[in-house]
Amino acid sequence: MNDEQYSTRGAYVTGDEFTRDTNYIQDRIVADPAAVRASGGPTAGSIGNVHAGVTEGADLWPVESERYRLVAARACPWANRTIIVRRLLGLEDAISLGTPGPVHDSRSWTFDLDAGDVDPVLGTERIQENYFKRFAGYPQGITVPALVDVASGKVVTNDYPQITLDFSTQWKAFHREGAPDLLPEDKLEEMDEVNKRVFTEVNNGVYRCGFAGDQQSYEEAYNRLWTTMDWLEERLGTRRFLMGDSITEPDVRLFTTLVRFDAVYHGHFKANRNKLTEMPNLWAYARDVFMLPGFGDTVDFEQIKKHYYMVHRDINPTRIVPAGPDLSNWLDPHGRKALGGNPWGDGTAPCPVRASEKVAPGHNPLYPPR
Amino acid sequence: MNDEQYSTRGAYVTGDEFTRDTNYIQDRIVADPAAVRASGGPTAGSIGNVHAGVTEGADLWPVESERYRLVAARACPWANRTIIVRRLLGLEDAISLGTPGPVHDSRSWTFDLDAGDVDPVLGTERIQENYFKRFAGYPQGITVPALVDVASGKVVTNDYPQITLDFSTQWKAFHREGAPDLLPEDKLEEMDEVNKRVFTEVNNGVYRCGFAGDQQSYEEAYNRLWTTMDWLEERLGTRRFLMGDSITEPDVRLFTTLVRFDAVYHGHFKANRNKLTEMPNLWAYARDVFMLPGFGDTVDFEQIKKHYYMVHRDINPTRIVPAGPDLSNWLDPHGRKALGGNPWGDGTAPCPVRASEKVAPGHNPLYPPR
Repeated sequence: MNDEQYSTRGAYVTGDEFTRDTNYIQDRIVADPAAVRASGGPTAGSIGNVHAGVTEGADLWPVESERYRLVAARACPWANRTIIVRRLLGLEDAISLGTPGPVHDSRSWTFDLDAGDVDPVLGTERIQENYFKRFAGYPQGITVPALVDVASGKVVTNDYPQITLDFSTQWKAFHREGAPDLLPEDKLEEMDEVNKRVFTEVNNGVYRCGFAGDQQSYEEAYNRLWTTMDWLEERLGTRRFLMGDSITEPDVRLFTTLVRFDAVYHGHFKANRNKLTEMPNLWAYARDVFMLPGFGDTVDFEQIKKHYYMVHRDINPTRIVPAGPDLSNWLDPHGRKALGGNPWGDGTAPCPVRASEKVAPGHNPLYPPR
Repeated sequence: MNDEQYSTRGAYVTGDEFTRDTNYIQDRIVADPAAVRASGGPTAGSIGNVHAGVTEGADLWPVESERYRLVAARACPWANRTIIVRRLLGLEDAISLGTPGPVHDSRSWTFDLDAGDVDPVLGTERIQENYFKRFAGYPQGITVPALVDVASGKVVTNDYPQITLDFSTQWKAFHREGAPDLLPEDKLEEMDEVNKRVFTEVNNGVYRCGFAGDQQSYEEAYNRLWTTMDWLEERLGTRRFLMGDSITEPDVRLFTTLVRFDAVYHGHFKANRNKLTEMPNLWAYARDVFMLPGFGDTVDFEQIKKHYYMVHRDINPTRIVPAGPDLSNWLDPHGRKALGGNPWGDGTAPCPVRASEKVAPGHNPLYPPR
């Protein structure tokens, strides 16, 4: 998403507590638009609803290979989710990937990592242009992840919790052989509870710590965060993954926060009761997931650190990016196999990440400096 | 000292690198002024010199019980040294202690913790008044620790590295029975090297990280800091204390930085390659020292955190003070006795801290909340 707005636009703060904007373009890309429209199911919520219909006023777009481009900055935890799920399900050929750089300005994310500072497929310098092609003067947050219709250059949706669910449920025709089931039907109810708690207390909870307007709001956010971190620590003492024996959607959602925890949230957002490395089960779990293909290989620690420390001038006015922490320990043995299970369930691991999408050497302990 | 000046006054920054002001009132309080003046020894340096004479233009004052008051904010690492050495040597009856609160303003430290916001002995609201009694319009930093001549209300000296040395060498007549020898003659040469390295790379090194003006200066400071932290980690693998089997002056000087490391320097100053808790020897050493009478019982973590996070608005504009880290682990068993030695050498441990000088309950794991 676009973090700057949270701290610089009053509209996103209620009293002294940070409140996340949840106004997204709620269009969906679906396998059978007519069927979804007819289903009359509940509308997509901000937490995500596997069996969602379509929000009033929103459009449905057809699934089609090579029609859409996923624009997802590696720095952003919400965008990182979509990069991971695309990898796990093997959607790389069906949906191409554009990656804005880590340090955006007040007009949001730019394609400054690409040759000529232009996305090679969309031909735009900033994703804002693609929002404006969809809605002239689009007044809401210019956020990633965004799915763009390549031919028209229009943003189709930036409704991040729905995007990964639709990758699982709507893009099945293009899943790789052996793609894991990230949304097992018999766990959906429990999964929704876990997702909700992880979202409000952890994913968004760290932001609530970092952007609190006063000491009291901060301390309330901090206590809520650590209450749930303790609950996760206990839960993961007996389960290899969040929902049990294999990777599911909630693991993706928790992972993108955990992988940023010590590098950013601990210091920058003052989420500092402990480092992740001091939570034995959570830390071993995070390493287990990190070392799975499709997870750690999507993570760019350099971009992550630069993004938060350089964009949030109001809490880091010097814009100096910490050189720490030492991240080599992400590859330490995790010992979680003793808990049993198979990360891929009845499926298989994804192939190694393709060369064109590899994280730069030195930006991740999986890819040592050249 | 007075941290605010480092970041807000240009005079203390050379280029983009933070440079510590070293202009102090270099008077000394000595046992035999005539003898010291006659010795013609080297003048007191910023690192401290056990056998120092007197700086040109500076005065010598006679040691005298109950004549001087030590003004030392618990928050300040340089002042903390003097509180510790006073305790170790049993100088509490000879030299009284005034403790300014943690959050000073642009006119420096105030006695806001005392009844009526006035130091009960000096009768002043801020230590600045005592500097001005000594030198009208005193233009240098208004810093703690400061020794004040109670009768006249004048600051005698604020030359912090010399103060603790003089407590050891000049105040011998008032040392308690069993006071440890913090400056063993046969170790002075090596001690001077250790003190120098610890001062430039660690005590002051953390400030150089925190107040760096640009990324490059910060990274240089960070690398220097961690080079010496690694050297200390190795050194403490075979020595129970910095100079060997017992506590000496360098342990005091290192301790006041280590005890602030995870609470402040790690996040606030971006000294974050590791937490202290991740350096096995240094962390066990720090706990060993913390649990000795005279060390941990002088530490007020609440004041320490408030001081740094609320005074340095330029690096923490929200002034929100982190609720973490969890500090209960300071009392975990340290296992350092296996290295042998006796902290007190031929001496004994100091008595428990007197009731009037106890740190507030809940501000230190030694004093649980009431």
